[in-house]
Amino acid sequence: MKASLITIGDEILIGQIVDTNSVYMAKALDNIGVEVTEILTVADNSEAIFTALQNQLNKVDLVVMTGGLGPTKDDVTKKVFCDFFSDKLIENEQVLHHVTVLLEAFYNKPISDINKLQAQVPSQAHILFNRVGTASGMLMQRENTIYVSLPGVPFEMKTIFEEELLPLLRKKSNGNYNGHRTIVTYGIGESLLAEHLNEWESNLPKDVHLAYLPGFGKVRLRLSLKGKNKEKIDQTLQNQIDLLPVNARSYIIAEEDIEINEVVAKRLQETEKTISFAESCTGGKLAALFSERPGASAYFKGGVVVYATQAKIDVLKVASQLIEENSVVSEAVAMEMARQARMLFNSDYSIATTGNAGPAKGDSEAEVGTVYIGIATPEKTYAQRFVFPSPRERVVNNAVSKGLELMYKEILKNI
Amino acid sequence: MKASLITIGDEILIGQIVDTNSVYMAKALDNIGVEVTEILTVADNSEAIFTALQNQLNKVDLVVMTGGLGPTKDDVTKKVFCDFFSDKLIENEQVLHHVTVLLEAFYNKPISDINKLQAQVPSQAHILFNRVGTASGMLMQRENTIYVSLPGVPFEMKTIFEEELLPLLRKKSNGNYNGHRTIVTYGIGESLLAEHLNEWESNLPKDVHLAYLPGFGKVRLRLSLKGKNKEKIDQTLQNQIDLLPVNARSYIIAEEDIEINEVVAKRLQETEKTISFAESCTGGKLAALFSERPGASAYFKGGVVVYATQAKIDVLKVASQLIEENSVVSEAVAMEMARQARMLFNSDYSIATTGNAGPAKGDSEAEVGTVYIGIATPEKTYAQRFVFPSPRERVVNNAVSKGLELMYKEILKNI
Repeated sequence: MKASLITIGDEILIGQIVDTNSVYMAKALDNIGVEVTEILTVADNSEAIFTALQNQLNKVDLVVMTGGLGPTKDDVTKKVFCDFFSDKLIENEQVLHHVTVLLEAFYNKPISDINKLQAQVPSQAHILFNRVGTASGMLMQRENTIYVSLPGVPFEMKTIFEEELLPLLRKKSNGNYNGHRTIVTYGIGESLLAEHLNEWESNLPKDVHLAYLPGFGKVRLRLSLKGKNKEKIDQTLQNQIDLLPVNARSYIIAEEDIEINEVVAKRLQETEKTISFAESCTGGKLAALFSERPGASAYFKGGVVVYATQAKIDVLKVASQLIEENSVVSEAVAMEMARQARMLFNSDYSIATTGNAGPAKGDSEAEVGTVYIGIATPEKTYAQRFVFPSPRERVVNNAVSKGLELMYKEILKNI
Repeated sequence: MKASLITIGDEILIGQIVDTNSVYMAKALDNIGVEVTEILTVADNSEAIFTALQNQLNKVDLVVMTGGLGPTKDDVTKKVFCDFFSDKLIENEQVLHHVTVLLEAFYNKPISDINKLQAQVPSQAHILFNRVGTASGMLMQRENTIYVSLPGVPFEMKTIFEEELLPLLRKKSNGNYNGHRTIVTYGIGESLLAEHLNEWESNLPKDVHLAYLPGFGKVRLRLSLKGKNKEKIDQTLQNQIDLLPVNARSYIIAEEDIEINEVVAKRLQETEKTISFAESCTGGKLAALFSERPGASAYFKGGVVVYATQAKIDVLKVASQLIEENSVVSEAVAMEMARQARMLFNSDYSIATTGNAGPAKGDSEAEVGTVYIGIATPEKTYAQRFVFPSPRERVVNNAVSKGLELMYKEILKNI
């Protein structure tokens, strides 16, 4: 089954928002063996939407559109659906009831005329019920192509997609399987890694596709293979991973598509150890990454964001003399921050960051991009100096990534 | 000038990464009056890329492609460019010199054969120099359409786009201007806001386009108008903003497209006040938002992420008795966290969060979604209870948004 995704939204075409709906839908469709061949964004106008629908007719089996289903005048998707399917809008009683109950509970007053419009749907549409909002999902077929329209608000789209659309699609996917395995490497560049893998890559089975995905401090390798026999596909991919050469193996931190903070979190959880953070230039990003994961309280004790120099003294109890003698961006201060955070939070491990992310110099004279990362463990405390390339965002992301890489190595030693 | 963007990457079609390059390019093109009519993602294979190039021929004036320019075997863009333009790859001496110098400095050893391939470009291509990486940008024209190919690594794409492509495009954009004004409202839903604006909306000039963009706790309104006369366009949009009705005005926090944390940060900076955070369920997200902004050290003192209950006692000095008597997710604890953070960091204002983001209950018996937000100011300390809808991510984002909305109101009072 082949699919294309169409996002409707001027706000994406003028760069006002990032289209995160497509990445969610693409992943969910890939998981059930549907091949997404195109992702397209078009303008909020009837002509552009109609043309996009027309272009996909009989080219793919499924089109999933998002956006343009709100109650306001800039939302035109339903009218275009009617034109494309030669249908007309009617008031759907069940939807009207749902919208009325939902809005009266929320606003504590009778439903308005504008919101009543949300109950109008094409007469022949199969309704995909929206439990959490007022814009219904709709499914219609023309010739060989199924068209689905979903609201653009991410949590509404996700709820309908999971509860209403996926169960229907699973029945139609004919047991196709898109196998993927991702290997995450840290500490080696893309081209050097490619050199190490040259021979292995040449010997991959013809139908196994290899991709390199570089990121901050890391390169991910993805092996893909499509087919019907899940067990055989998974085994073929595992065999190729087992054949990876020794000189590439040492850079692998995970044999699944997982972020390094997840790897560290899992190891902490398995070994019943805890972590804390003392962040200056990373400004709370390390803590935010760890708190995103449900159940984090088992291994994440907390962190301090000591952005100002005075906060390092007042909150973390770093001696002002140490800062004066070494500068706030220094090996000694990074070590002391890590050591103090470990004591303050009574954790097994700590990561500290102090640096100058730019664009201008801050509380120290350190060159823009200079970052010291401090690591405290039950056995030792140390710090390392790095100079990361500008701009600011890149310095911070590199500091987060490198701090986690250093911590990963420490935790590995203790297993 | 009309443009379309083509992103090449299986990793986007299977939902492995979000396409952030397109949002950057769309915004940059809109800024110089270029209208982006489509954003398309296609697979990493020659046929899909060739078809996409073909489909845009003479339909738009400019096509900007990203991706598929790496040194590894899965990168096929340059070969497709040669096919499409009936050209062949040649080694470019200038590019070879640049790649050699860059890589020898980085790896401290002679350039490898794989990396030498980066110097091969179509013989007729105009090279868009990549100062920060090894994959050159390329520009070629066929009939009425200019095709540009850029690397997919975001900071490389951005560098080439700004330094090499934009100067060329500015010359060609014929003085077109895409005028946009965005108004940010907080504390009112999309449909209720639309009711307040019904008459105003009906009276908008025909060529002024209005869009509603709902988000966490907020609705943005965007007015757009295209043309040649920048001054007149800006004045027309301003006039419509001045005509916004009184019952909508009170929800406006900014008359520009800006996040609420930016608004708070600006107000703090203008009034020379400072802020700190005591975060439990928001896990460092408030601190991370404030530290993203260059120059934050002027008003952002720091924060504590006291995720575990013990950390609230040890680090923030919240009395254990207060926690026992009220529960860790309570009005009293949120107030005390805000008060203690304000003292610890010696800041004028503090925001504290304590709640249960789910999916399971944590250190308290509070219902999933319950969040108390504490606010401390020079005049008073208070806390409010909220119940935000699941899942976890939505609870956390709503808590961040609501905390900033409460703080915004406090700071307004003091101006």
